[in-house]
Amino acid sequence: MGGGGEIRRVCVVGAGAIGSLFAGHLGCIVETSVLTRREEHARALVREGLRVSGKSELHARLAASTDPAELPEPDLIIIATKTLDVEASAQRLHGHFPGAMVLTVQNGLGCEEVVHRQGDWPILSGVTFMSGTRHGDTHVEYELDTPTWLGPWAGGSASYEDAAGVAELINRSGLKAEAYPDLLPHQWSKLIFNSAVNSIAAVTDLPHVKAFARRESLSDLGHLVYAMMEEARAIAAARGVELADDPWEMNVRAVGQGSTGGDQYAHVPSMLDDVRHRRRTEIDWITGAIVREAMKAGLPAPYHETLYRLVKAKEEGWELGGG
Amino acid sequence: MGGGGEIRRVCVVGAGAIGSLFAGHLGCIVETSVLTRREEHARALVREGLRVSGKSELHARLAASTDPAELPEPDLIIIATKTLDVEASAQRLHGHFPGAMVLTVQNGLGCEEVVHRQGDWPILSGVTFMSGTRHGDTHVEYELDTPTWLGPWAGGSASYEDAAGVAELINRSGLKAEAYPDLLPHQWSKLIFNSAVNSIAAVTDLPHVKAFARRESLSDLGHLVYAMMEEARAIAAARGVELADDPWEMNVRAVGQGSTGGDQYAHVPSMLDDVRHRRRTEIDWITGAIVREAMKAGLPAPYHETLYRLVKAKEEGWELGGG
Repeated sequence: MGGGGEIRRVCVVGAGAIGSLFAGHLGCIVETSVLTRREEHARALVREGLRVSGKSELHARLAASTDPAELPEPDLIIIATKTLDVEASAQRLHGHFPGAMVLTVQNGLGCEEVVHRQGDWPILSGVTFMSGTRHGDTHVEYELDTPTWLGPWAGGSASYEDAAGVAELINRSGLKAEAYPDLLPHQWSKLIFNSAVNSIAAVTDLPHVKAFARRESLSDLGHLVYAMMEEARAIAAARGVELADDPWEMNVRAVGQGSTGGDQYAHVPSMLDDVRHRRRTEIDWITGAIVREAMKAGLPAPYHETLYRLVKAKEEGWELGGG
Repeated sequence: MGGGGEIRRVCVVGAGAIGSLFAGHLGCIVETSVLTRREEHARALVREGLRVSGKSELHARLAASTDPAELPEPDLIIIATKTLDVEASAQRLHGHFPGAMVLTVQNGLGCEEVVHRQGDWPILSGVTFMSGTRHGDTHVEYELDTPTWLGPWAGGSASYEDAAGVAELINRSGLKAEAYPDLLPHQWSKLIFNSAVNSIAAVTDLPHVKAFARRESLSDLGHLVYAMMEEARAIAAARGVELADDPWEMNVRAVGQGSTGGDQYAHVPSMLDDVRHRRRTEIDWITGAIVREAMKAGLPAPYHETLYRLVKAKEEGWELGGG
């Protein structure tokens, strides 16, 4: 592969908020298609296009289908589903688009490997910090215009130049992206932040509020957030990864946003949203991934094991019909 | 003090399920009064007496008031409120009944000390395993006829003979009691069991089901229950307490009850019931007590600290109006 100039066709897999943001922006500068799960979603996108409001005001014309065979051969596939759907998405892509490069933008660790098992595509790892809200199948609001970080996945054949080309394309479309030769320090920083904030929010039913950064009295929640992050930092170090950003500082910055007092900033982390709607969470790819990395490193992980098991037990309770 | 034969008058403080079971049974063999929180509760008890159904079928005539000055001078005070109300109850007793002995039957650790600060009564520590359901102010159903364990509190002047006398009285009334020279091994066994089962149920919204004893795959909850119990066992040992019963075995026995498969046995621990009704929990006296004991012993307690902070954070969420 080479630079971003060669990417003339993109296929976005999954049109939730993140997938829609990619498709809506990229669709204005290159030929873009969307592989959807639902037939009526594909039909609506073909009929109406995709509108982006908020931080961008755009309207993109797109190809869309539930069948990859009906879509034009892309140079780049962006898999933007939730982690839980990556395996099914990759299976649908099996045997298709052999000339394309794949970018994964899921939370957690391990999605690249799942994609790799279904095809010999060069793979870029991505971590996105942007956010939006779907207002329907053909309208997404662009909210947080924070960047997507990407880099070549170490287990595959993509190069830094591939990552830089894709980052250039994403930036040109009006979104933000940064390419790194080694994404792991960035991926782990976000992973560690997400693992603590999401799992704790999921079991306490508490949005990401100031309590997550408070470490005064014995019972304060910030002690737990800090301890989880330190535990994960040691695991990252043992796996050869030095963090790009300090997860504790990310936590303190986030809960300090837009609030001079009280808890007006009260972001509902995705895992808490999943729990509130009794949807299966991404815990296996986030906190569970850190537990597995600790085992590989031969390190103890009492905090991560605890939160991992608590969230899994909570999910099990729904299956029992409890609660 | 001497044997149980000298106890002619009992005052029960708090008439929830446990207090009502004591008052209903003891009221049939000795002069018994109830110190209630609500006026109408006292009036109903005086007017209608207290009915016990289920494992016992009894009807007791009782004195009752919200003011200790209106009650006859007792030889024995049984404080049967929840831990959260012990301090207020003891303050109401301050200056009254100087000739009485006090029996506390709360969960957790530390209630005896709270009572001791309000008066120079000899104090017996109690741990009760019986359970019942209040069907109103004047009717309680006796369900689990398991015993109450009691012994002299080490910080006060009660003797083993005092405990034996009270146990004899309780047994004569139709309830079950066992006296021990040193209650701590029994108190800690129940404390450790309660700390793990209650706090985990409270954050997972999972009743006490078989999952609490399962230790097969990495995510199984039994690993966490076991780790918490082992952590607490080490803290007990460092505090000079050898457990009377193995909390893990108590857990395995409890979830194995009355079920050959599935999860028909699904006891809702009191802390989960509190959480479901958004009532403040007893976490400070149970899991929090173990965290404080660990600090005194200079031992780490990552599992107990974690569950302690998670339940406290959950309570804080209600105050924020979240969830």
